[in-house]
Amino acid sequence: MISSDYTRNLFITDSSSRIVMLVIDGLGGLPHPDSGRSELETANLPNLDALCARGSTGLISPLGPGFTPGSGPAHLALFGYDPWTSSIGRGALSGLGLGLDFKPGDVAARLNFCTVDGDGLVTDRRAGRIPTDICVRLCALLQDIAIPGVKVTVAAEMEYRAAVVFRGEGLSDGVTDSDPQVTGHLPLPLQAATAADERMVAVANQFLDQVRRILADESPANMVLIRGFGRYPELPSMQQVYGLHPVGIAGYPMYRGIASVVGMETPETDWDVDAELDLLQQRWRDHTDEDFYYVHVKKTDSAGEDGDFDKKVHLLEEMDARIPRILELEPDVLIVTGDHSTPSIMRAHSWHPVPTVIVSGHSIPVQGSQLSERSCATGSLGQIPSTALMALALAHAGRLAKFGA
Amino acid sequence: MISSDYTRNLFITDSSSRIVMLVIDGLGGLPHPDSGRSELETANLPNLDALCARGSTGLISPLGPGFTPGSGPAHLALFGYDPWTSSIGRGALSGLGLGLDFKPGDVAARLNFCTVDGDGLVTDRRAGRIPTDICVRLCALLQDIAIPGVKVTVAAEMEYRAAVVFRGEGLSDGVTDSDPQVTGHLPLPLQAATAADERMVAVANQFLDQVRRILADESPANMVLIRGFGRYPELPSMQQVYGLHPVGIAGYPMYRGIASVVGMETPETDWDVDAELDLLQQRWRDHTDEDFYYVHVKKTDSAGEDGDFDKKVHLLEEMDARIPRILELEPDVLIVTGDHSTPSIMRAHSWHPVPTVIVSGHSIPVQGSQLSERSCATGSLGQIPSTALMALALAHAGRLAKFGA
Repeated sequence: MISSDYTRNLFITDSSSRIVMLVIDGLGGLPHPDSGRSELETANLPNLDALCARGSTGLISPLGPGFTPGSGPAHLALFGYDPWTSSIGRGALSGLGLGLDFKPGDVAARLNFCTVDGDGLVTDRRAGRIPTDICVRLCALLQDIAIPGVKVTVAAEMEYRAAVVFRGEGLSDGVTDSDPQVTGHLPLPLQAATAADERMVAVANQFLDQVRRILADESPANMVLIRGFGRYPELPSMQQVYGLHPVGIAGYPMYRGIASVVGMETPETDWDVDAELDLLQQRWRDHTDEDFYYVHVKKTDSAGEDGDFDKKVHLLEEMDARIPRILELEPDVLIVTGDHSTPSIMRAHSWHPVPTVIVSGHSIPVQGSQLSERSCATGSLGQIPSTALMALALAHAGRLAKFGA
Repeated sequence: MISSDYTRNLFITDSSSRIVMLVIDGLGGLPHPDSGRSELETANLPNLDALCARGSTGLISPLGPGFTPGSGPAHLALFGYDPWTSSIGRGALSGLGLGLDFKPGDVAARLNFCTVDGDGLVTDRRAGRIPTDICVRLCALLQDIAIPGVKVTVAAEMEYRAAVVFRGEGLSDGVTDSDPQVTGHLPLPLQAATAADERMVAVANQFLDQVRRILADESPANMVLIRGFGRYPELPSMQQVYGLHPVGIAGYPMYRGIASVVGMETPETDWDVDAELDLLQQRWRDHTDEDFYYVHVKKTDSAGEDGDFDKKVHLLEEMDARIPRILELEPDVLIVTGDHSTPSIMRAHSWHPVPTVIVSGHSIPVQGSQLSERSCATGSLGQIPSTALMALALAHAGRLAKFGA
């Protein structure tokens, strides 16, 4: 593990070297049944091929063979954090994902708008899957909720789904869900895991009481179910661990959220790749103390999840065409990788390890290597855990000292 | 690790997918000094080659680089159990290996027939290496041993070696060996590790007293040394861990024993491969709730241990010819692997990692890949621990949920 008692003193913090980690979400894929070629093998990627011709290639695995990660654990692994033990709770991820004002000490939870009858029994756990615009309107109504000593923020997600963030003294996340999972029952009473969680239960019950009153005349969404209580994840920052000044450049709020959890600065930007690269270039020029840039590209994953093989191929080619914009900056180390694989033929995240290239003055290129699942399987980096990538990034940047004399 | 607090909720138990894991014992080998080709590289294996042309290949290592496993740990690793901490005691493995009636709560130990003089001093720790048929006759005599509240079963192994299983209330395995390791000494008195082991010591002493009387007039084997006390290993079952309904199909009793330790059903069968495949086909058709079949092929390992390179090649070709019998069943996932390597030129188990192929709809075949030590070294699975194979089997079968949001 990169962050341990043994490695603690190895990080060189006075280096002027600068690292770019380009994360193409859902990068890895699987062969198309007709062509036998994966998305990466189908795409025409001259710039990425050129990187592989002078970089070290390999495959990285977020959770080890067979295990498929969500975005949270997959990114934490990329940043060198143990993805099993550092995982971010569902409520917290929603809080991060919605770009809510969410900080250490806060507690987030997920909300489902639902329908209850006159006796308070749940008749529809999803309130007829109300459209997102109604969800937005109802969340606005819930902003009026006032609980002494606690700031409450509610934000719409999709359809009947929303999230809430509680801020105040003595809040915690050892609280059970109210979702009864079946209709015809009352919402479950919230229960505290320990005495220390009693205040959070009391606060959440006040919240639910006010929700019930505010939504009483709405239909079909006249109540909420609350679940997945989670504190803001408190991880050591990348400054503390590695001595870096890291910046997260991501159009999607959730990825800025994950980046901020590990201590990155996360300036806002559009989710369009060119806007992200504009921001990267501007920060690179104007903030010469910043030395680690995480750049996130979202649409490849969405195309994979939609099962749109051709679109994923096209998006990879679009990204390839923009690689020169990063090379212009002459980073000491450029890494191109993904958080996990999203094969179009599976329409989902998968466990398959992710093609990766590290370009620096200390790479070991393998002839004919390309950024693909099969080519990277025989690259000079081998097949390694995603958690090992940060150590390699720092080593290639001259930021890891020798261990032992 | 596949079985941990983190992974506990990831196993999807309501899937209808079905997995076959074909374990060719001692599969891996080493190059013959004359040809430079290993057993797998020498054999003509068209059906296995065809599997590799559409599957993911790689090498699996039971205990990590350099460590050679016995059959027990090698198989436990294949089934996803930590082979270091879950290891099965020697007495227990003998009990399992002899196909003795051996269940949770029972305690097994190994017996060596030996020779003692008139004063009870050990003069030959192996009783002149009596032939196995005499061992069988003496074990039959020992079936008459009667200890109140305890059922005793004795079975011959090879030459002077046998095993005993004790069944009864309050038995345990914290008992030292009686073997003095040198001649000219009395057998060592059995000692209890804790107060809870005193009953087992008393039972074992009654056993030894009766052995002494029954064998008093035999020569040269007129006593036994007892060692390696081991309880029936109590591991969580594959049902509990993975939600599978697993079946072990193995002609040799020891492999049925290991399979039953991890909760597999283990119907009896001949050790002939065709008989095993008959049973597989019958179970597959008649027991559609069963979803994991471990099929064990023994003779390849024996040929390797005999140093018979050509015979191992021939047996591999015989197995290859039977692969279509498995493919007829159209399993969702077919894995062909071995528990460990048994190179003919070493005449023994070895530490070399084992060629492996996983065939499913989500494989990444590498062109020209074959089931051999060198070809699998550059397969898309990489070189991974054997314990990772079950997670891959379940992932390829759609039986592992995503971790984290």
